[in-house]
Amino acid sequence: MRTTVGIIGAGPAGLLLARLLHNAGIDSVVLESRGRAYVEQRQRAGILEQGTVDVLRAAGAAGRMDREGLRHDGIELRYAKKRHRVDFPALTGGRSVMVYAQTEVCKDLIALQLKEGGLLLFEAEALAVEGADTGSPSVRFRHEGREDVLECDYVVGCDGFWGVARQAVPAELTRVFERTYPFGWLGILADVPPSHEELVYARHDRGFALLSMRSPSVSRLYLQVPEGTDAEEWGDEEIWAELERRFETEDGWRLERGPITQKSVTPMRSYVHEPMRHGRLFLAGDAAHIVPPTGAKGLNLAVGDVVTFARALTHQKETGSAELLDSYSETCLRRVWQAERFSYDMTTLLHRAPGATPFEDRLQLARLERIASSRAAETDLAEGYTGFPLH
Amino acid sequence: MRTTVGIIGAGPAGLLLARLLHNAGIDSVVLESRGRAYVEQRQRAGILEQGTVDVLRAAGAAGRMDREGLRHDGIELRYAKKRHRVDFPALTGGRSVMVYAQTEVCKDLIALQLKEGGLLLFEAEALAVEGADTGSPSVRFRHEGREDVLECDYVVGCDGFWGVARQAVPAELTRVFERTYPFGWLGILADVPPSHEELVYARHDRGFALLSMRSPSVSRLYLQVPEGTDAEEWGDEEIWAELERRFETEDGWRLERGPITQKSVTPMRSYVHEPMRHGRLFLAGDAAHIVPPTGAKGLNLAVGDVVTFARALTHQKETGSAELLDSYSETCLRRVWQAERFSYDMTTLLHRAPGATPFEDRLQLARLERIASSRAAETDLAEGYTGFPLH
Repeated sequence: MRTTVGIIGAGPAGLLLARLLHNAGIDSVVLESRGRAYVEQRQRAGILEQGTVDVLRAAGAAGRMDREGLRHDGIELRYAKKRHRVDFPALTGGRSVMVYAQTEVCKDLIALQLKEGGLLLFEAEALAVEGADTGSPSVRFRHEGREDVLECDYVVGCDGFWGVARQAVPAELTRVFERTYPFGWLGILADVPPSHEELVYARHDRGFALLSMRSPSVSRLYLQVPEGTDAEEWGDEEIWAELERRFETEDGWRLERGPITQKSVTPMRSYVHEPMRHGRLFLAGDAAHIVPPTGAKGLNLAVGDVVTFARALTHQKETGSAELLDSYSETCLRRVWQAERFSYDMTTLLHRAPGATPFEDRLQLARLERIASSRAAETDLAEGYTGFPLH
Repeated sequence: MRTTVGIIGAGPAGLLLARLLHNAGIDSVVLESRGRAYVEQRQRAGILEQGTVDVLRAAGAAGRMDREGLRHDGIELRYAKKRHRVDFPALTGGRSVMVYAQTEVCKDLIALQLKEGGLLLFEAEALAVEGADTGSPSVRFRHEGREDVLECDYVVGCDGFWGVARQAVPAELTRVFERTYPFGWLGILADVPPSHEELVYARHDRGFALLSMRSPSVSRLYLQVPEGTDAEEWGDEEIWAELERRFETEDGWRLERGPITQKSVTPMRSYVHEPMRHGRLFLAGDAAHIVPPTGAKGLNLAVGDVVTFARALTHQKETGSAELLDSYSETCLRRVWQAERFSYDMTTLLHRAPGATPFEDRLQLARLERIASSRAAETDLAEGYTGFPLH
């Protein structure tokens, strides 16, 4: 089998890349190790930056998002029982975010791909990228019990943190930057309208909590829990009681309860693999970098990567110049590190580390007071949240 | 001996307070354990915030400062051999800072006090504050070999981190917030014109360095060194070579050398004592809080405290209301915690902690890139550096 761009992974990065290449008249094949049903159901992030929304619209993949997504013009910070709203458009010259689950983005892109795009193979497990530093890289994969080879001009690894693509970059050329956090997020989906119309990020002495939503009738809520927590340790009643404590305000705000339909624990990690390119292999999204979910940056970073790649390859096709392909890693990493910084800062601003000192607690409160009282500090946060420029 | 306000310590806080009270027609006595020559020679900070400059002018203590001080409209951040200037007035609506050594501020205030102020006793060692929670507190002190008692309506402890005033706050009413840093500053004075007209804050893989000045002909330079370093371990040649390395730029900037006239090591600490008031005892400056020197906030915080006290006492005298005296601690602590946050952030932005991970190194660079590329982030820094409002 042969194609111009071999794409490993049908998450949002791989699917969007296939769409962008299709629109640019470049053929590709997407290999996805899981089945379609699995891909269309896995729960991930749900906040699309302004830039991501713009890209999906330009790619012709935003029809349902624009009907069903919820545009959010701000978030609420909650601390010491106080509430402070950050107004995105007022601070950033009109930028906002869209609440639309990653899983819905994937469904939309899969439907488009199957209708008018190139080949998308489910249950096609990539085994290795070969010849990355030659003129003709390939992906060895297993599909329907047989091994096969996809020969390409370029391979883009969109296969996530546990994927095989990254392994094709020789260790001696690689630098890894990493941080783990001694806590995770216990996330629930509940059949109850969200108790607040925007996301609420709460800093509490007992730990962080986040109120989010999937739709006007489905709440998505998170609790900071110790690293290694099993979601089943937490009973429903216990979860609601803890959420109520952490979201408590002095003005009597109320959290509405409803049936919990899903429970899971997300670990927290910061990770960057440098470089993001080796020869004709390009890494995109979680295959190259992980952020803790606090800043809602993971999906948006992946979108930035594949937009950068599609633009670079189009440029090469149109002008013959490989300049943008050659600078892919540097271009992406500038955004990646800003997002890593932002995600780290949001995480340390709001979570209570085990063994945090009283000095560190006061420092968090002083940071939150600063954001609430300085337009500059608040703008810095709003710019980061709504997203760093795509180029 | 009896006075309205007993002031312990003739550092800038105590001396300025005596001046402010004098101007308000309130009598005070200042007790200083050291001799005049010592007080007028100890090297401390040298950056006065806009608010501090304004206060000294309003107090009639700014004549020499306005002639000899150096107004600075910015600082330079240096990292990865790059240079970025932060323009204070452009970012803060006209605010700037003044380079004028604390020791000069003290000389000016001592001269004024001796000329027209109340009693200022040198070599008068405060031994204890007594009756802080009664209507008539007093300071027991030793002067010229004899113990004596200064009876007061109010006592203000401006006696620094090692002073006795803080000990009069009962432990059970006290909360202490503290952080030490695993490094210090090796500071030198050198008889050479500063190699740059503004302060240069350098982040380097080998550690932080700061270029500052005392006057147009005297440079003040600092190197981050391991905690517990003895200044004498460093030879002059070694100091200059290390400074050159850390200040290196890609554009060939040169550090001028000159005779080193003084060498010392400053430890780094963050410390806050809450509350800052107990009955009729008020703590001001280093007696209540310490910041690492990176943000140049120590002296300025002390000024903020004594301005708050003088205003509160004047208010009580004029209206009979103790309201501002009663809220002294809360009022000061809001500013203190913002300065603690700023100083901590400047310190962690620029210093290399022993055992720092590659992830943390990259995070520092991403923060510096952010400041250099976002007006919001840069403004946040400029506002913090030029100072938080005095009320």
